[in-house]
Order: sequence, then C-alpha cells, then structure tokens
Amino acid sequence: MIAHNSPLTPARDALLFTPGPLTTSAAVRQAMLRDAGSWHFEFNAIVASVRERLLRLAGVSRESGWEVVLLQGSGTFGVEAVFQTCVPRAGKVAVFSNGAYGERIGLMLACAGIEHRVITAAEDAAIDPAVVDAFLTEHADYTHVAVVHCETTTGVLNPIEAIGAVAKRHGKTYVVDAMSSFGGMPIDFEAARIDFLISSANKCVEGVPGFSFIFARRGVLLASERPARSLSLDLVAQLQAFEKNGQFRYTPPTHAILAFDRALAELEAEGGIAGRAARYRANHETLVSRMAAAGYRPLLAPAIQSHIITAFHYPFAGFDFSRFYSKLAERGFIIYPGKLTKVDTFRVGNIGRLFPADMEQLVMSIERVTAELRA
Amino acid sequence: MIAHNSPLTPARDALLFTPGPLTTSAAVRQAMLRDAGSWHFEFNAIVASVRERLLRLAGVSRESGWEVVLLQGSGTFGVEAVFQTCVPRAGKVAVFSNGAYGERIGLMLACAGIEHRVITAAEDAAIDPAVVDAFLTEHADYTHVAVVHCETTTGVLNPIEAIGAVAKRHGKTYVVDAMSSFGGMPIDFEAARIDFLISSANKCVEGVPGFSFIFARRGVLLASERPARSLSLDLVAQLQAFEKNGQFRYTPPTHAILAFDRALAELEAEGGIAGRAARYRANHETLVSRMAAAGYRPLLAPAIQSHIITAFHYPFAGFDFSRFYSKLAERGFIIYPGKLTKVDTFRVGNIGRLFPADMEQLVMSIERVTAELRA
Repeated sequence: MIAHNSPLTPARDALLFTPGPLTTSAAVRQAMLRDAGSWHFEFNAIVASVRERLLRLAGVSRESGWEVVLLQGSGTFGVEAVFQTCVPRAGKVAVFSNGAYGERIGLMLACAGIEHRVITAAEDAAIDPAVVDAFLTEHADYTHVAVVHCETTTGVLNPIEAIGAVAKRHGKTYVVDAMSSFGGMPIDFEAARIDFLISSANKCVEGVPGFSFIFARRGVLLASERPARSLSLDLVAQLQAFEKNGQFRYTPPTHAILAFDRALAELEAEGGIAGRAARYRANHETLVSRMAAAGYRPLLAPAIQSHIITAFHYPFAGFDFSRFYSKLAERGFIIYPGKLTKVDTFRVGNIGRLFPADMEQLVMSIERVTAELRA
Repeated sequence: MIAHNSPLTPARDALLFTPGPLTTSAAVRQAMLRDAGSWHFEFNAIVASVRERLLRLAGVSRESGWEVVLLQGSGTFGVEAVFQTCVPRAGKVAVFSNGAYGERIGLMLACAGIEHRVITAAEDAAIDPAVVDAFLTEHADYTHVAVVHCETTTGVLNPIEAIGAVAKRHGKTYVVDAMSSFGGMPIDFEAARIDFLISSANKCVEGVPGFSFIFARRGVLLASERPARSLSLDLVAQLQAFEKNGQFRYTPPTHAILAFDRALAELEAEGGIAGRAARYRANHETLVSRMAAAGYRPLLAPAIQSHIITAFHYPFAGFDFSRFYSKLAERGFIIYPGKLTKVDTFRVGNIGRLFPADMEQLVMSIERVTAELRA
C-alpha cells in the first residue's frame, strides 16, 4: 500500500495481482534513482540497446525487415499510433473483438475518422477464424485486420496464427494488440503473419508504465500515407528520429526507460520468454487449483484461458466486491475488478514479480475474507 | 552520468543544465520505489491531491471555472491534445511563433488537418502584440490563438498578457504553451485571459517525465465538438474519467505521479512559485554574470531573456561544440545544444534541482574546457 497519509506504513508494499501496472522487482525501481539527460549519448545508447534486445526477444531481426519503435504514453497510445499512422485515408479496418480492448480499437478508429467495423464475438469464447474468413470474403474492400491477442477483459486467448493466415490469404495488413501477452508467452511473428504488434513497458517485461513499443515490418510502416493524422502518435517520424540521432523526438520517460533496461536484463536472466512463461503458467495453475478448492469458478474454459489473467465468478449471490477488495487490500493484496457487461466477475493477474507462493498466500486470504463476507 | 557499461561509476550523478528532463531531488526519485495499483483508491487519492494542488499553484480554482487534466506522454502530447480535442472542424488556429516550439504547433495542426497559419517572428525577439492585432483584424475567421510562453529554443519570453488581451478583444480562444515556464515564474491566468495552458511534469515543478498537465476553462473544454480527433488525446473524456471515478482512462505512469506528488510538496515548501522563481532567477543571474566574465555573450537582450534557459553564442570561430559538450559531460555537467537555424549557439538551463553554487561550478568548468579547446 502507498502509505501516503497513513499513520502506519506497512513493512512491505502490497502485491499487485493486476494486468499492469504490476509488481516490479526492487532493482527495476532502483534503476529510476538516476536522472538521465535525454540528449546525452549514454542515455541514447541505452535506448538503442533496449530496441535491439526487444527485437531479439521477439525473435525477429532488422535483417528480416523488422523494426521496433518506442512511444511515450500508455499502451493505448501505441495501439492508436498504429492506426493514426498506418491506415491510409481510403483504408478500412475490420476489428474482431471479444472484449473491452477490442471495443477500444473501434473507439479510436471512430475518433480518427477511419472507416471500420467491429465484429463482436461472445466475451467468453475465442474469436473464430472462420468468422474472420467469412467477413473478409464478403467485404473485400477492407484493408486492415485488427485483433487483441490476450483480451484482458476475461483473459481469453485469441488464435492469432490462424487469424493471421486468413488475413494474409485475403491480402490484409494485420495488427495484433499483444499488450498483456508479449514477453509472457511465445509469439511467432512470422507464423502469425503479423505486420504490427503492440505491447507496453509495464506488462510481461515487468517494467514501469510510461511508454509502449510497436513492432513493425519496416516496409509496411514506411509505406504509410503521409502525414500521419497525429504528430505525437506518428510512428514513421518516431522511427526516423531513432535512426537519425538515436533520440526520441519528444521528451522520453527517461526513468521508465532506465527501469525497462533493467527489466529486460531480468527477463533475459530468467531464460527469456520461455522462462518467464513457465513462471506465469505455474502462477496460473497454482491460482486456479487453489481457487477451485476454495469453491471459486473461473469464467473461461481451460482451452481458451491464458496464463496472464484469470476472471472468476462472484462466489455467491449478494457478494460485495467492494468490501472483498478492501479487505484483501488491507492484507496487502491488490486484485482487479471485472470488466464484463453481462456476468459479475473479478480478476486476478498472474504477471509481474509474482511467484506461486504469492498466489498461494493470495488464495488463503481470499478464503479467509470470503468467509468473513458470508458471515 | 549513467554508468551503464562504464567500468567506473562516478560518486555522484551528472547535473543536467537542460530544459528537462532535468535534475530532480533524491527524494523525488525515491518516491518511485513503490508500485502503485492504478485502480487502487490510495493511488486515486494521490491523483486527486495532485490535481487540487496544481490548481492552487496556478492561482485558479474550480469555483471560478478552472480544471486541470493530467495526460500520459510528453509535453508535446499535451499541447497536441488541446488542438485535437478543442478546435472544431470549422476552426482555424493562428500560431504566433518565434522558435522551434511554435513551429511544432504548426506541425501538429497540419497532421490533424486543422486549418492554421504560423506567423513567424525573429527568433531573437519577443512576439509583438501589435502583429497579433493586425493579423486578427485582417483574418476575422480565425477562432484560436496559440503562443509559446518561454520559447526554449532561445529562452525568449513572450508577452502572454498583452497577447491575451488582443486575442480576447477579437473574441478568440487562447492557448498558451507554458511547458518550460509554469512553476518557475508567476503567471496570472486571469490577467492573461488564458483558456488553455499546458505544462509538463519534468519542468519547473521538478518531477520526472511521463505526463503533461493541461489547465482549462471547464466551460470552454466541455463545449468542444465531439468526438475528439484522437481517443488517447481526448481531454474531455480524460476529465470525465477523473470526475467519474478518480482514475486515468488508460494506464497512468504511476511512478511518475508518485514522484510528482513529492515534487509538488518540495515546491510548496520552497515557497511556491515565488520561491522557486527566486532561486531560478539567482541561478540565471549567476550564470550570465560569470559567463560574461568568461567572455561568453548571451544571444538575447536582457529585457526579453527568461530565467529558465539561456542561449550563448559560440565563443570563437571553429568552436567544436561536440568536444566541448563531451569534455563538460566528463566533468559531470550536461548542457544542451542550440536549436537555432541561423546562429550557432548552445544552451544552459537554469531549472531543476540546481543552485547558484552549481552554476558557478559549471562556469568554472566551461572556462577550463574552453581554454583546452582554444589550445
């Protein structure tokens, strides 16, 4: 807990079982104890190193035509930047959505005045590639396909490889919002036929919030109609600045970059994405089995459930989430509310500097607090 | 210096004589050692407190119709957000510019497809309110007037009160980019007839980079044509989210907010803007007098020179700025390059956790290094 005005400061901070900002390592936070000059060559060397290592982590390379662009702001800024920069004035975007983050892509396209259609699936099911195929067959004038990889609304995992195969068969540009999945599970960029993939600093790489990063096929990015619809969100200009002098065009979140540099080192030391995915999977399995024993039902079927975040049904009628949340917070566990329209759920994130023992402690407190609420 | 791959770590960090990111206090950076949940009520209470205190600092209030909105990203994102949100489709913006930041407003208007004209003045002179008056008299169809308060390109200070009086006489909405001046010098919002004023976390409040803040007359902001042209940069939706549940719409830079909370406390303890302005003025005066003694000439006449940042002419023909910069960096002083198109200058910032003694030490090193370069 942040002991802002509290008379007593707990000996340790609360753990965040959230989709991000999440719990980071002490070393990641300590990396922010320095002030770096944004024009200074030492800082620029760190930015260059971060970009190199992100490409390596993604399993792609400049030689095979990939680039990565860092952009100030939250992950949503990064997703919007792809559309504001890369969809031509005559372009049309088909968004296949099964949750709030898919819907959000529709909202940003509406703001930007970009023609689009949001094709909505059930929130508790994965997107069906056959639906994508049928839509694109009927609507050949669409130029872009967009989908969220792990829809954090529920934790459902969408089949980005199968959807990518369909999108490419129809000749579309393919945009994947992998905000909460990149770094925490393997993604084969080439097999999934991805053109743009977006994630952010405070997700599975376990950095602090402040910027997003966008992987792009260089040729596709540079072919964008000019100018972009937004100066701040212009990914072509942002890339060109990195290539010209190694710098962000506008003030970078220097401390968040220093933290991310350290977070990448920790991810590398954990065995890269495979190593981290194994820990998150262990977190998830511990959570779900213990929660089942405590009588909690997950929303999703195991086949489509990611190991990133898990939604659970309320345990009984008249369950008071707000009291449940506060009582857990008092014990040093911050969980996340649900985001579904039709079903009452709450969510538990498995990502961040968390280990199976943390999941066990959380569930023990959940059991205790639930018993108090039933009483 | 960031001792990223250096074999030797200096005992203290380099001081940043830059327009931001700048040198912050150790306590401001230490405030980032905690991970805050962005949905958590304790974090939201800090956000609410920060917004309250920003209004108080600005000398305005909700009762008199003012609001302040925090927005993720750099200061440029905040300036662009005002235009993307608040200029109607039929609006036209007159930008009065005497430097790179005024020009940048023109670039963002061009991207957004907003009709505009950049009226350019000499870079080493303040903007003349008579020019504004003449332009608006001739072009009654313009709806907005935009100007940069302290144009960091040179450090020139523009007369925002006189320009505001002209803009209001013509019935225009008035936008002031006070990025590098807010917090470091008094601004009378009502006397200047300001409608929107933008600054950012890593300037004179002495926080770390990660967000900007936009002061707005609530009625003017809420009268904006909907939807905004950008979802991420939509200031109306951003304000509505703060008012609905105290939260940022999208992931906030939690650590930068915690740092800012601490930075505001330090600013308050320094005697508010008056106290801070006195220190910056002392920094500036020390800098200019010592530099004059060392044979350096400032670019601007004292009457239009701010105490925020100072541009100096190169000291002799064939001066190698790059070597000069590196040699100063080796001594722990990071200065800033010039940004002028016609004259060779470098810049020294007076803002951040710097004191007159730091300015003296900087100038002694500048003298030493200049002598080495002449040799």
